[in-house]
Amino acid sequence: MSQAIDENDILNLTRRLAGAAWSAIQPYFRTGATAENKAGGSQFDPVTAGDKAGEQAIRDILAQERPDDGIDGEEFGKHEGASGWTWLIDPIDGTRAFIAGLPVWTTLIALVDPDGHPVIGVIDQPVVGERYYGAPSGSTLETRSGRSPLKVSTCTDLRQAIIATTDPYIMTPAEQGAWTHLRATARVSRYGLDAYAYARLAAGTIDLVCETGLQAHDVAALVPVVRGAGGIARDWRGNEAKLGSQIACASSEGVFEQALISLRRSAI
Amino acid sequence: MSQAIDENDILNLTRRLAGAAWSAIQPYFRTGATAENKAGGSQFDPVTAGDKAGEQAIRDILAQERPDDGIDGEEFGKHEGASGWTWLIDPIDGTRAFIAGLPVWTTLIALVDPDGHPVIGVIDQPVVGERYYGAPSGSTLETRSGRSPLKVSTCTDLRQAIIATTDPYIMTPAEQGAWTHLRATARVSRYGLDAYAYARLAAGTIDLVCETGLQAHDVAALVPVVRGAGGIARDWRGNEAKLGSQIACASSEGVFEQALISLRRSAI
Repeated sequence: MSQAIDENDILNLTRRLAGAAWSAIQPYFRTGATAENKAGGSQFDPVTAGDKAGEQAIRDILAQERPDDGIDGEEFGKHEGASGWTWLIDPIDGTRAFIAGLPVWTTLIALVDPDGHPVIGVIDQPVVGERYYGAPSGSTLETRSGRSPLKVSTCTDLRQAIIATTDPYIMTPAEQGAWTHLRATARVSRYGLDAYAYARLAAGTIDLVCETGLQAHDVAALVPVVRGAGGIARDWRGNEAKLGSQIACASSEGVFEQALISLRRSAI
Repeated sequence: MSQAIDENDILNLTRRLAGAAWSAIQPYFRTGATAENKAGGSQFDPVTAGDKAGEQAIRDILAQERPDDGIDGEEFGKHEGASGWTWLIDPIDGTRAFIAGLPVWTTLIALVDPDGHPVIGVIDQPVVGERYYGAPSGSTLETRSGRSPLKVSTCTDLRQAIIATTDPYIMTPAEQGAWTHLRATARVSRYGLDAYAYARLAAGTIDLVCETGLQAHDVAALVPVVRGAGGIARDWRGNEAKLGSQIACASSEGVFEQALISLRRSAI
């Protein structure tokens, strides 16, 4: 790191960022707000006014409090900073869950160091009132009843594992093949969770999450949360997770190694 | 009805039933409680100690307050009553969501009249703090911030609809064919929600839910909630919903009629 950050200061700041985002987003949740079609064609890519309002709320605070940092958000693109540190923001990760009124979308906030490594990550689910926070000193869950450390499960066998992916239909045929193999091996499979699946992996109730086609602002917040809880975050070849494309997070080397048998063949 | 019930009394009673169930279930949620294998074989059918504890808590209150009513619960079977009225209970609907630590499982409580029609239904999600209540006078949602009427969406076109089913893999090939057709037509599809999908249909953020292989205690609570919010609850032939097997609930006749084109061919 070219410059130290104070974990506690950043924790307090991210609390306010997530709170401001939810205040901006809440008027659009479960109110029948129209989803725009970002792609402009028949491909459905929902983005609500809440997405933009949430990102603007976060940007406004960062502009005041961290004016030297860069910002890269899903909605308003990249703003270069002088400090070398960059905030990656996805105000509503899981837009399909959001428009279906489900409490499993999240707000993602990450702080990436000058070398491109995500150091701080927040996965915030404001409807349930859960904030998953990842940092080098460890990961924690903050709810209405307090703050507690996050720890991945003790699962080491894929056959006992609870696994998740957001949507097999957005995978390539080769990737679907890998997923089908995993699903046939694992105990239970869950879908449609987006970043919330990684939050529950950090919390020990999901043991493996495999996804593809991710963007940097989808991934950056997950990595510190998963690793700070003792989990593994890699790509489908078993290398350190990159900020995008194919990601596999696991509770243990045991689960990861077994998953890799299926994933490696479909790695890009 | 052979005997009148007071909707308000029942509402108050179901509040206490749902609250007692959650108190009994909470110690088992997200605590790594081992799932038993009810089927005893390789087929996975999770049932936690929370399931039994929740049903016992509900039965204890009903034994005191409605001693003449019958009870039929997922865990402890059927107890005949003298009044002709029967309580149908599924303490944890969505056991896979439950063991994955997701806030979309629910406690289902229904009161069925002597003619076998579900009159009162409760879909309770205690982690989010949402109680969906259905009765002849209408459906309501109770949260930490108060109580509000439930109303289905204004969607009348399947192509604009948000649709849901719990798991296409538990369907027969013919049923999967119907689902695939629906999914290709609709705007967004969601999975793994069990009864919570019907709750959100009543609340207007999901427009169609189609499921198969249901039991009476899975269905009985849903019907009053959906109908009390202005929605439709039928089978895959378009007849009135039975307490089990194939169910299709929709926000409108428009959505339902379009869905029926696919469903009828796979109706049993």
